[in-house]
Amino acid sequence: MPSYTAPVRDMMFVLHDVLGADRHGIPGNEELDRDTTAAILTEAAKLAETVLAPLNRTGDAQGCRFENATVRTPEGFPAAFDALRDGGWTALDCDPAYGGQGLPHLISTAASEIFSAANMAFYMYQGLTHGAYNAIHAHGSAAQKALYLPKMVAGRWSGTMNLTEPQCGTDLGLIRTRAEPQPDGSYRITGQKIWISAGEHDLTENIVHLVLARLPDAPEGVRGISLFVVPKYLPGPDGEPGARNTVSCAGLEQKMGIHGNATCVMQYDGAVGEMLGAPHAGLRAMFTMMNEARLSVGLQGYAQGARAYQMAREFARDRLQGRALTGARNPEGPADPILVHADVRRMLMEQKAMVEGGRALVFWGAALIDRARRAEDREAEALISLLTPVIKAFLTDKGVETTVLAQQVPGGAGYVRDTGLEQIVRDARITMIYEGTNGIQALDLVGRKLGADGGKAVMAFLALVTGFIAEHQGQDSDFDAGFLTPLAAALEDLGAALRYMQTAGSTAPLDALSGAGDLLHLFGHVCLGLMWARMARAAAVSAEDAAFCAAKIATGRFYMARLLPATRLHLARIETGAAPVMALDEEAF
Amino acid sequence: MPSYTAPVRDMMFVLHDVLGADRHGIPGNEELDRDTTAAILTEAAKLAETVLAPLNRTGDAQGCRFENATVRTPEGFPAAFDALRDGGWTALDCDPAYGGQGLPHLISTAASEIFSAANMAFYMYQGLTHGAYNAIHAHGSAAQKALYLPKMVAGRWSGTMNLTEPQCGTDLGLIRTRAEPQPDGSYRITGQKIWISAGEHDLTENIVHLVLARLPDAPEGVRGISLFVVPKYLPGPDGEPGARNTVSCAGLEQKMGIHGNATCVMQYDGAVGEMLGAPHAGLRAMFTMMNEARLSVGLQGYAQGARAYQMAREFARDRLQGRALTGARNPEGPADPILVHADVRRMLMEQKAMVEGGRALVFWGAALIDRARRAEDREAEALISLLTPVIKAFLTDKGVETTVLAQQVPGGAGYVRDTGLEQIVRDARITMIYEGTNGIQALDLVGRKLGADGGKAVMAFLALVTGFIAEHQGQDSDFDAGFLTPLAAALEDLGAALRYMQTAGSTAPLDALSGAGDLLHLFGHVCLGLMWARMARAAAVSAEDAAFCAAKIATGRFYMARLLPATRLHLARIETGAAPVMALDEEAF
Repeated sequence: MPSYTAPVRDMMFVLHDVLGADRHGIPGNEELDRDTTAAILTEAAKLAETVLAPLNRTGDAQGCRFENATVRTPEGFPAAFDALRDGGWTALDCDPAYGGQGLPHLISTAASEIFSAANMAFYMYQGLTHGAYNAIHAHGSAAQKALYLPKMVAGRWSGTMNLTEPQCGTDLGLIRTRAEPQPDGSYRITGQKIWISAGEHDLTENIVHLVLARLPDAPEGVRGISLFVVPKYLPGPDGEPGARNTVSCAGLEQKMGIHGNATCVMQYDGAVGEMLGAPHAGLRAMFTMMNEARLSVGLQGYAQGARAYQMAREFARDRLQGRALTGARNPEGPADPILVHADVRRMLMEQKAMVEGGRALVFWGAALIDRARRAEDREAEALISLLTPVIKAFLTDKGVETTVLAQQVPGGAGYVRDTGLEQIVRDARITMIYEGTNGIQALDLVGRKLGADGGKAVMAFLALVTGFIAEHQGQDSDFDAGFLTPLAAALEDLGAALRYMQTAGSTAPLDALSGAGDLLHLFGHVCLGLMWARMARAAAVSAEDAAFCAAKIATGRFYMARLLPATRLHLARIETGAAPVMALDEEAF
Repeated sequence: MPSYTAPVRDMMFVLHDVLGADRHGIPGNEELDRDTTAAILTEAAKLAETVLAPLNRTGDAQGCRFENATVRTPEGFPAAFDALRDGGWTALDCDPAYGGQGLPHLISTAASEIFSAANMAFYMYQGLTHGAYNAIHAHGSAAQKALYLPKMVAGRWSGTMNLTEPQCGTDLGLIRTRAEPQPDGSYRITGQKIWISAGEHDLTENIVHLVLARLPDAPEGVRGISLFVVPKYLPGPDGEPGARNTVSCAGLEQKMGIHGNATCVMQYDGAVGEMLGAPHAGLRAMFTMMNEARLSVGLQGYAQGARAYQMAREFARDRLQGRALTGARNPEGPADPILVHADVRRMLMEQKAMVEGGRALVFWGAALIDRARRAEDREAEALISLLTPVIKAFLTDKGVETTVLAQQVPGGAGYVRDTGLEQIVRDARITMIYEGTNGIQALDLVGRKLGADGGKAVMAFLALVTGFIAEHQGQDSDFDAGFLTPLAAALEDLGAALRYMQTAGSTAPLDALSGAGDLLHLFGHVCLGLMWARMARAAAVSAEDAAFCAAKIATGRFYMARLLPATRLHLARIETGAAPVMALDEEAF
């Protein structure tokens, strides 16, 4: 049985030494000291390691079962969900007005990594609920909030998001699901939604579907879409689940991975719903949910990488094959552990550098969300809006790469089911696709985020990196050479790419779009370069745990030397423009 | 049901326009004209498209069943194997002395791509037989050849290779399986072998196991390993299967993919065998088999990419989402096919460029094998020996990347089982691992192949690329700019990397080994750069099918502009040496 150990020490370092979670806290959370954080994460680790992680294989092997329009989750999932609920983990960063604990999103993000790494398919049930909670919290009426939020915060009711239909995924303007207004102010929803994660299951008393649909008078395209709350059971006068609504699961998808999460075809047959927010403003409301969901998907990407890295590392320590080039390391044994071999090291270092860099970036993103939401910091909001597509797509592309690389370390043992690595690869693969494919993220970055508010956010990001370099330059020649010089070079590449995009954007948009994926990766590398420079700095000034800090700096050096230089390649690709990409006739493919 | 269309037109182009298969043929094969090739490939395509491809999903869904030490392959596999045998496809490039058709390996390679793309798990049964055929042909006694080869050529008996044991995969020096000599000159083999592809199945009358084992007086390590032929049924005096040998399948592995191929635990309990070749020389004999097997695995890598590309392309043509930036392409419909979008194009172009480049490289490798074997061309032999690890590892790393990228085109539809793409990703993944992991290939390249015979082969390769550039430079400014200039730049990177390796190899081997994977990829890119330049040249001088030739040149330009520049990044990584890779203490992972 593949085990999992939550990287609490690493998380504490990022939360406190790098991000100073206890120093410049969020209003209302000034008391978030190291002891509190450690206690929370240690408890999360216990649940993840003893309950969720052992269920990961079960979930994959059994999958969800569809019987008479109901769904049974894998054995052990309902009990595990009870444990999640009873531990208060569904309420962590929720609004105290509705029973939440009001902790920073930063802390709940750390807990999410732990739960998600232990069992991604399982924790998705909660992740989607949290997204729906956010949407209702932001757009619901007082009555809607009072009805739904306490139950969702308590983990008694779960949530879903219903966007996709057979004829439309990315292009939501093509949505056909209809909402007919009723005399009592409610709506009747009719249509089919597909690929609805957690659309039906046996974990909660009720399921709250957020559904995109069109009013009869809706204008065509995305400007005619409204958002509706459609509960599985209609709440009675006491607010408790009453009559069964006419929404049902019509089947489950057979997928590559995340078998433990029910991916449902949902049928709405005049189901009763209420509008959430204003008419025709559904897409914006749904995006309240999508943006945090996208950050969560970025988290899933590196979290699966983290789980895979742990497995690969343990294998590399235990497996004896060959001898170290520099002399036997295990002379008593038949061979040395494969961790001694340069190429195995190289693979593990790539994984470690990506995972720890990804963690720092996502935690930073979560801290920005806290500043934006709780301190009404507009700059933080603009910055996280810019970074959202980068975090989602870069960390999931790299997350999947990391799992594939981890699978390579044990060779054949990584390809058979027992070691658990091949499941991680299959599970992680969805993260590049859902909540907007990574191609769509690149389009969002280039087409919307770069130019938003006159490019203010991107200028702020560049100033932030430049500022970091200027602040630290010339104090420590090792740090200059190992971190600041490569970071400055990468930043220069990003600057050149952005200038190309700016020119192309106004004169030849296809040139810009042909390099969108490369720009996103270039941007992602600069983000991770900044994170590694910040981590190395924090490790250098830390007084304790010298071995931990030395390892952190060494891993950072690896990132800066071996991975960050990819920025130059991305720039070169971007500068070739649209010609090589668009040259073929459609028939010639 | 995902369909498959064999790329016969593309293959004809590589075989005849690029490699001139009909002009400078192999002794005995002078009559291999276009019509003959086309007839063979068209027949192979028919079998693959109508019989093998439709069974690919079945094989994945059903897998192999283990019952009472026997293995049942998926429904339809036995009949399909009969069709393969009856069509003469098991005999294509085999020695006419044993019933083979004596066609060039080049032609059988093209047919192999077709069969392997259609159903990799199925065609592996034949691929392994061909490997065993090669080993017996090269190392068997006259009696052994007479006994085994005709049946293997006829497809009546199949073959396997037995290397791995629980405690050793890469490090074959740790093999424990023992061979006890018997008074009659035979041997009794005892031990357990794992991960034996096609170790047991119901497709052939007999299975010929080639097994690595130790004689009682064997020296330790790899110098004490001998090779044995151990048939499932002992041939009687008439050469037909007689008594059951004491070798049996003890179980099947549950794997990520290639479910249709039986991956067996094989138990040898004093099984009767004969030695193949000389005592203690088993590893070299097995490598006769491994080298061609490695080229076949490189082929599987790009072939799965080719199949995935076809699926992605069809999806991109059919799926309507969004509008082209340059004006609606399908104004009558609700949206345009997603093929119009720049990022979808970018993904398809990457797949197309990799697949077609991979095909050219593997076909060139097969032509080199023909020259080496049938014209005893020592230079060709040295060159293919150098290229073998590059073809195996580069084309499988890129092959898997290609399948993942293809899966990205349909988004969610690529993640569910129906479209077939997720199976291709799972099947392709094994190619990075088996027949020596890609890390081992990199070690083989840097540790053995570069320095072999004083570096003669690598000098010959560099001269070949330089010669091509010199021969064509200055004749066509478009070709110079689009192909020769980037190829020369990549070659310069390769030269610099090789100089680094040479210096490091003698003074600090860890520096060389830390960059082995990057050198292999750099080398692979130069190979594909050369292939694309040759293809573009052939397309430019071709008088027929202008659209086909224009597309070939455009795809080549994409490769040279967008993918080949990766050589610079690989060089930069190599030049950082061992320090970043080896810095961490073992405990710090």
